[in-house]
Amino acid sequence: GYARFGATYSDNADDWNTASRLRLQFDVSTETDGGIVFGARQRFQTEENLSTGGATDPNNSNGARFYMSTNGFTLAMGNILGVIEAAPNLYLPTASSGMGLEGNGFYSLAANTSSNGGRFAWTAYDSAGAGAVEGVEVLYSMNGFGAHIHSTEYSYGVGANYTFSGYTVAVAYEEWDAAAPGGQVDGDSILFASIGGTIGAFDVALAYASTEFSGVEADKWSLKGGYDFGTGLTVYGFVASEDVVDESYGIGASYDLGGGVSLEGGITQTDEALDDTIVSLGAFFSF
Amino acid sequence: GYARFGATYSDNADDWNTASRLRLQFDVSTETDGGIVFGARQRFQTEENLSTGGATDPNNSNGARFYMSTNGFTLAMGNILGVIEAAPNLYLPTASSGMGLEGNGFYSLAANTSSNGGRFAWTAYDSAGAGAVEGVEVLYSMNGFGAHIHSTEYSYGVGANYTFSGYTVAVAYEEWDAAAPGGQVDGDSILFASIGGTIGAFDVALAYASTEFSGVEADKWSLKGGYDFGTGLTVYGFVASEDVVDESYGIGASYDLGGGVSLEGGITQTDEALDDTIVSLGAFFSF
Amino acid sequence: GYARFGATYSDNADDWNTASRLRLQFDVSTETDGGIVFGARQRFQTEENLSTGGATDPNNSNGARFYMSTNGFTLAMGNILGVIEAAPNLYLPTASSGMGLEGNGFYSLAANTSSNGGRFAWTAYDSAGAGAVEGVEVLYSMNGFGAHIHSTEYSYGVGANYTFSGYTVAVAYEEWDAAAPGGQVDGDSILFASIGGTIGAFDVALAYASTEFSGVEADKWSLKGGYDFGTGLTVYGFVASEDVVDESYGIGASYDLGGGVSLEGGITQTDEALDDTIVSLGAFFSF
Repeated sequence: GYARFGATYSDNADDWNTASRLRLQFDVSTETDGGIVFGARQRFQTEENLSTGGATDPNNSNGARFYMSTNGFTLAMGNILGVIEAAPNLYLPTASSGMGLEGNGFYSLAANTSSNGGRFAWTAYDSAGAGAVEGVEVLYSMNGFGAHIHSTEYSYGVGANYTFSGYTVAVAYEEWDAAAPGGQVDGDSILFASIGGTIGAFDVALAYASTEFSGVEADKWSLKGGYDFGTGLTVYGFVASEDVVDESYGIGASYDLGGGVSLEGGITQTDEALDDTIVSLGAFFSF
Repeated sequence: GYARFGATYSDNADDWNTASRLRLQFDVSTETDGGIVFGARQRFQTEENLSTGGATDPNNSNGARFYMSTNGFTLAMGNILGVIEAAPNLYLPTASSGMGLEGNGFYSLAANTSSNGGRFAWTAYDSAGAGAVEGVEVLYSMNGFGAHIHSTEYSYGVGANYTFSGYTVAVAYEEWDAAAPGGQVDGDSILFASIGGTIGAFDVALAYASTEFSGVEADKWSLKGGYDFGTGLTVYGFVASEDVVDESYGIGASYDLGGGVSLEGGITQTDEALDDTIVSLGAFFSF
Repeated sequence: GYARFGATYSDNADDWNTASRLRLQFDVSTETDGGIVFGARQRFQTEENLSTGGATDPNNSNGARFYMSTNGFTLAMGNILGVIEAAPNLYLPTASSGMGLEGNGFYSLAANTSSNGGRFAWTAYDSAGAGAVEGVEVLYSMNGFGAHIHSTEYSYGVGANYTFSGYTVAVAYEEWDAAAPGGQVDGDSILFASIGGTIGAFDVALAYASTEFSGVEADKWSLKGGYDFGTGLTVYGFVASEDVVDESYGIGASYDLGGGVSLEGGITQTDEALDDTIVSLGAFFSF
């Protein structure tokens, strides 16, 4: 698991607050005589002293993901990953998977469209709640090619990606066929596509998503990049543009202290959901 | 702990559903200079991504059982086992302790009488909740003889068993002396008796229970057996008959894949509580 | 962590009850190349089969405390210790930190003033709940000198202590500047002071607190001492006097069985909140 703590600032709230998360992760697995690995993952996560799930009592376990895996083939059930969530270059390759210590609202994600309410609307491994209902997924990877399909009580998804010469192209699509607890309705959909790779000390990725929720479409582009100075310091940034709202952009840095500890900081300016400047900074350590 | 995942089917619901459970078990213990072992057991259990306790938020720890043990004598407190729950040959010797992956309603248990509502009405170690209120129990085992008494805020129990030449005979009795949260009232009782043993690759057991809840009596017989083919495959089944309702029967199989992993499947037909056919199958692994 | 189980008696309730607690403690930490330790502590605690937090469902994790520490300097966030809670000689040096197995109401704490409702009113690491809101604290220790300051959403605190020739003198002060969820209001305060040390097999401490809650002041003295017979047996006791109510006193004993196991028992007589005699005894073991 990991822990992180520091501070966040929101220009709208005009207030600095402490920020913290502790994630205890239990990965259990065993292997059959025939070489099939069976395993499960469960997290116990606490944020700002409270359950990530939102209760005032910090009871914080999530739903478990169960899997069996052999020869590049994985079958999983329960709190599944989902095809959008698992698509390459959806998230930034940072400690928070977004900007700074906590992600700063994750405006860097192309699939996070604000104008139609499509923020984190896809099926994903839920660190704080039960996750997918009746979730089942199959992943396959071979010779740089990866395929991923999933099914839940409310949606299905399909994804594919291919890695060649250090570049990865990916596409993923999820569509709902029933009204879901997250507010999605029959016919809602997310299409995500990305290309990204590494050129020397640079990593760069371009992502695109087209989302439709309750009949309202929103498209979003996100260009992301980072540079590793080779001294423990990495600097990264993004520019994202959604068709019916203004841009978001951000810049951040990570400094590696060794032993799994790093200092993380980042600032995001967004005109998406509402005009805001968000800062988060602090220490991150894995254990 | 262990994990299991697969699918269940109920003829009444006419629907297949995913089925999963993750049980993280913490067993802690230490030993005094005089050789007395002090310990405790607590479980964190999740089913179908949710708390086994039923909340939508998967917060899943149970009450702890505390014990001290020396020379065949054990004193325990808290979330105690209870005399009926711990009686030999109440449960099947399968991965689910019942039929198939999940138990299929546990109609194989003689003490589970449907006609008077006496299903799982006894004091038991609760994997999903707090368990017994003011529970205390003493167990003693010596030279094949075992004795067990318990006391809770609402009931007391006494049990005994004896093992000779590979056979075990057991009897256990629990009686309530106050209205309990589980719905039991003063005077309710469960009497359980069993005999079981192993003959070569066969194991067989016969169990009987007489239960009285709110003045309504119900008696039930259950005959259970299994055969180990010696190839990793075990086949087992049961027939149970309750005096005022029709029979239940079931057949199941377990196939050992090594590494603590097995495939489990079983089908149960019951006319007890309501006429139903139940199937559960999938993978089980311990870690 | 640790576990303890036994029985308690209250003369007012005129009833014996079982008493138990299981504390699973997760301490995680890592160290940077520069020698700075980053860590976090979280507990999962169950009492009498239930969540310490009070819910009937035993979901029992608390808020986490995060820290970084180097060269005697510690910065912590989240579920912080607090200056009063961490002050030397506030608690007894027993397994329960109070009298007997469970503390018997902790009347031995000078800062626990009953007449003005100031029982456990200070900021403290909460084993059962989220703990401080927006809590940050800094501790520093060097050459026997210790300093401690904290800040929360509702209060700030400052403490200092000095150890010389086996004696420790300490003073700590917490004041509220806003109405807090615990019932404190702007202007409430706790001043705590103590001196304690070891003379051969004796340990002795004198503590004093002056508390003001909602304009009502209460002062309390507590004299505490213990004697280690060197045979595994330790006997200890206290006398405490609050200015507007009568005295409390208690006597207890601990017997070490080795392996981290001890028998603990104690009796407390109090005239503080209400006239009562409290007994708790049982077994304690750490793991």
